[in-house]
Amino acid sequence: MPSTDEFLHVSLAATLSAEIKRGLWSCGQRLPSVRQLGRTHGVSVTTALAAYRLMEDRRLIEARPQKGFYVCPLPHPLTAPEDLILRAERADESLPPEGMHLLNESPGLVSFGTALCAKDLFPVEALGRSIAATARKHRDLLVDVSFSPGSDALRQSIASHASTWNCQLAPDDLLITNGCVEAFGLCLQAVAKPGDLIVVESPAYYGFLSTIARLGMIALPLSFFPDPASALSEITRVTANRRVGACLVSTSVSNPSGLSMTTKAKQALVDSLDRLGVPLIEDATFSDLHFDAVQRAAKSYDRTGNVLLCSSLTKTLAPGLRIGWVAGGRHQDALVSLKRTMSIGQPLLIQEGVAQYLRTGGYHYHLRQLRKKCQSQVEQTAGLALRDFPAGTQVSMPSGGYLLWVQLPDTVFSMDLYRLALREAITIAPGTLFAPDDRFRHYIRLNCGGELDGTRLDALARLAAIACKLA
Amino acid sequence: MPSTDEFLHVSLAATLSAEIKRGLWSCGQRLPSVRQLGRTHGVSVTTALAAYRLMEDRRLIEARPQKGFYVCPLPHPLTAPEDLILRAERADESLPPEGMHLLNESPGLVSFGTALCAKDLFPVEALGRSIAATARKHRDLLVDVSFSPGSDALRQSIASHASTWNCQLAPDDLLITNGCVEAFGLCLQAVAKPGDLIVVESPAYYGFLSTIARLGMIALPLSFFPDPASALSEITRVTANRRVGACLVSTSVSNPSGLSMTTKAKQALVDSLDRLGVPLIEDATFSDLHFDAVQRAAKSYDRTGNVLLCSSLTKTLAPGLRIGWVAGGRHQDALVSLKRTMSIGQPLLIQEGVAQYLRTGGYHYHLRQLRKKCQSQVEQTAGLALRDFPAGTQVSMPSGGYLLWVQLPDTVFSMDLYRLALREAITIAPGTLFAPDDRFRHYIRLNCGGELDGTRLDALARLAAIACKLA
Repeated sequence: MPSTDEFLHVSLAATLSAEIKRGLWSCGQRLPSVRQLGRTHGVSVTTALAAYRLMEDRRLIEARPQKGFYVCPLPHPLTAPEDLILRAERADESLPPEGMHLLNESPGLVSFGTALCAKDLFPVEALGRSIAATARKHRDLLVDVSFSPGSDALRQSIASHASTWNCQLAPDDLLITNGCVEAFGLCLQAVAKPGDLIVVESPAYYGFLSTIARLGMIALPLSFFPDPASALSEITRVTANRRVGACLVSTSVSNPSGLSMTTKAKQALVDSLDRLGVPLIEDATFSDLHFDAVQRAAKSYDRTGNVLLCSSLTKTLAPGLRIGWVAGGRHQDALVSLKRTMSIGQPLLIQEGVAQYLRTGGYHYHLRQLRKKCQSQVEQTAGLALRDFPAGTQVSMPSGGYLLWVQLPDTVFSMDLYRLALREAITIAPGTLFAPDDRFRHYIRLNCGGELDGTRLDALARLAAIACKLA
Repeated sequence: MPSTDEFLHVSLAATLSAEIKRGLWSCGQRLPSVRQLGRTHGVSVTTALAAYRLMEDRRLIEARPQKGFYVCPLPHPLTAPEDLILRAERADESLPPEGMHLLNESPGLVSFGTALCAKDLFPVEALGRSIAATARKHRDLLVDVSFSPGSDALRQSIASHASTWNCQLAPDDLLITNGCVEAFGLCLQAVAKPGDLIVVESPAYYGFLSTIARLGMIALPLSFFPDPASALSEITRVTANRRVGACLVSTSVSNPSGLSMTTKAKQALVDSLDRLGVPLIEDATFSDLHFDAVQRAAKSYDRTGNVLLCSSLTKTLAPGLRIGWVAGGRHQDALVSLKRTMSIGQPLLIQEGVAQYLRTGGYHYHLRQLRKKCQSQVEQTAGLALRDFPAGTQVSMPSGGYLLWVQLPDTVFSMDLYRLALREAITIAPGTLFAPDDRFRHYIRLNCGGELDGTRLDALARLAAIACKLA
C-alpha cells in the first residue's frame, strides 16, 4: 500500500487547479516558487515540484526556463460546432484505444471499470447445454461455412425478439456480426467516408469513438438527452458546410449515461435525420435492460430504410460468444457484402447453439431477473456514491442497465482517481474516455453489474476515500 | 472408377516436373528418350510418352522433331509494370465480390467452384467432442470476454504447430482472427494506406483481391513462381515512383495455382522485401497440405519483423469455425489493437475447444490422411481434365492442396463455361476472379476436394463436354 504522502502532490495540484479555475490565479500569471509553495502548504520542495509537474502535464501551467511556473490559458467551454470540429480533429486518437487496455479485467482487481455483469447473472447452464447439444448433434456445423449474413435460425430468433421493440424485421433484414462493435464499424464503412463527421452522443461509449478514429472519421459529440432538438439543429447547421456521414445514438439505455429517449423524441430523430439525408445508426445494446418497460426502437419509425439498428447479446446474454447483429435498412446489401469481404461470416455452431437457446423462450425470463437485479444494484451504488464521494458529486439517473455515470467536483480529475484506485487494485472507467476531448475529465463511469458483496462495498468505500482526498 | 494404369503417366510427369523445378534438368537440356525413361521408371513406352506429352501440354518441355524432348524456359511475367498499374486501377472492383456469390454452394449443385474439401474428410467427431466437452465443463467461457489477441491455449497450440514450418513463435507473437481473410485485412490496414499498391501473385485468391479493393488499395499482380527474381526487380522499379504498401505471397501451395516456392526463393523474397522496406504478408492457408513435405515458411527467415504470417484452420481442419491467425512481426501491437478496436476479439469457447483438440495430437495424423486423399484426387482430376477437355487444355502441377488451375484453349472463355455449367447445376471458379484484369479469362479453377464418385465424375464429363462445344 502506498503511504498517504504519495498523494500529497496530487492533492496539492488539485487545490491549485481549483484556485486557478476559481480565478484566484489568472492566465499568464506567475505562480509562487517551488520553495514558497512548499512553505505555504507545509510540504517539501520535492512535493511542491511534483505538484507543478502534474499540473504542467495537464497543461494547466507551463514552466518557463529560469523564470518559474505560469498559468496557461484555460480551455474554454465548448459551444460553436466549428470549435467542436476543430477540437475533434486535433483530439488524441490514442486515448480511446488506450482505454480498452485500461479497462481489461485482471484477476485480483475489483472492477468498476468494465461494462460487464457478474458472471453468475447469466444463464450459463441452459446456454451451455444448448451449445454442447448442438455440437454433439450437428457435426456438420463444424464444417459448413457460414457466409454472411449468417444463420437463418438465429436471424429468425432475433427478428422475433426485435418485434418486442416494435420492429417488424424479417431474417433477411439482419446480418450477424462479431459483436455490436463490428456491426457499428461495418455501418460506418457502408454509409460514411474517411474525413466525414460522425455525430455521436456526449458522452459516448469509447469503443465507438475508437472505431470512428480508426476509420479516419471525426467524432462530433452532441447532447441527445432528454431531447434531441438542439442536437438536430446543430446537425442542420453543420451539414451546410461539412459532410455528416452518420449520426450514432444509443436511444434506449445509453452507455455510459443510462439515459433513454422518449418515443416522441425517437420519432423526431428518425424523421429529421431522414430529411437531412444523414443515416441514423441506432445502438440498442442495453435496450433490453430498461427497468420499466420494453423499449420501442427508433428503427420502428423508419419508413425509408435510413436507420441502421445495431445490437448484440453480449451485455444481456453471453459476453463470451460475440453475437452481434445489424438491421441495415437500405444499406443492408452493402453491409452483407462488406462483412463477407472482410471476414466471410461468423462461426455457425455458436449461432445455431444460441438460436436453440433463444427458441426455448428462457431469454425473456432471464431478462426480467437481470433487470431487477441491475436496478437494485444501480440504486444501491448511486446511494453510496452520493453519501461517500466528495461533496458536490452528482450521479446519473439510469433508466436501465448496470452503469452509473458520476460527476465529481471540479477539483477531482478522473485520470488521477483512476491511477490512484488502480494502486489499490480497483478499476474505474475515467470520463476522459467518453469524448474525443477532455470535457468529461471530472466524470467516471461505475459498473454496478457486480453483486455489492463485502469486497465490492469495501472497494467502493476506498474509492470514495481517494476521491475525497483529491477533492 | 478409372484404373490405376491411367494415372501412371500423371505421376511420372509429376516426378519429372519436380526434378525440373529442383534444377536437376536445366532449361534447354535434352531429356532421356522415351525408351530410356520407360526403363528407368519401370513403365511402358506408351506411359513414358504420355508423361512427356502431358509435360509438353503444360509447356514444361517441348518436342523437337527427330531430336527428342527438351526442357522449356519457365514462364515469365506479363508486360511492363506501368501497364499493370494502369490496368489494376481500371479494374472492375465489383468482380471479386461478385465472385463470392458465384461460388456459394447450394444444395443440388455439384461444386467444383468453392475451395472446400468434402465434409467427411474432416475429423468432425473428435473435434465436435472437444467442443461439446469444453462447453459442458467450462461454462465460464460463455461469459468471459475474449479480448484480442485471443485464447492463450490456442495461441500456444498454434505456436507449437508453426515450429513445424521452422517458425519459432511464442503465443504473444500471435493474434487469433475470424479466418485468414480477416487476418489479411488487418495486416493491410496495419501496414498500408488507401491508394497504395499491393503486390499480389498472379493468379491470386479472389478474396484477397476483394479485400484490397475494399480498402481503397490497388492490386498489382506479379508472378512469383517458381522464382520471385523478376517480380522483385519489378517491385524495385515500381517503388521508385509509387508507394508499395505490402507484398502478399502464398509461399507454399498457392491458391489457385497450387505452386510452392523453394526455400531458397522464400529466403530471397524475405531479404529483398526487407531491403526495399516493403512488408511481406505471407499466406500459409494451404501450406499444411503440401504433398511431399512439411513446408518451411518464409517467416522463418524473418530477422527484422517485416513478415506478417497469416493462416487459418479453415481449409485443413474446420471450415465452419473461422479460426484464423496472424504473426505480425514488428506490426503485432498494431494488429492486436486494430482487432480490438474493430471487433474486440473472437469467441473464447471455440478457441478453447479447438485448442483442446489440437493438444490431442490428432491434427498431424489427420493432415497426413488429408494430404494423401488430396493428392490422389488432384491427380485423378488432372488426368481426366487432360483427357476430356478440349485439345490444348493445360493443367497446373499442384504441389499440394486440392485445387487445380486449368488453362483452356483461347477460344473458351471461363465466364461462358461458368454460365453454361451452372445451367447443368455444376459450379466452377472462373479465372477472371483471380486477377484485377482479364488475363485469366481462359482459365478455371477446379476444386478436387470432393470424392470423385459417380456424381462428380459425371459432372466433370459434362463440364468437359461443354468446354469442347465452346472450343
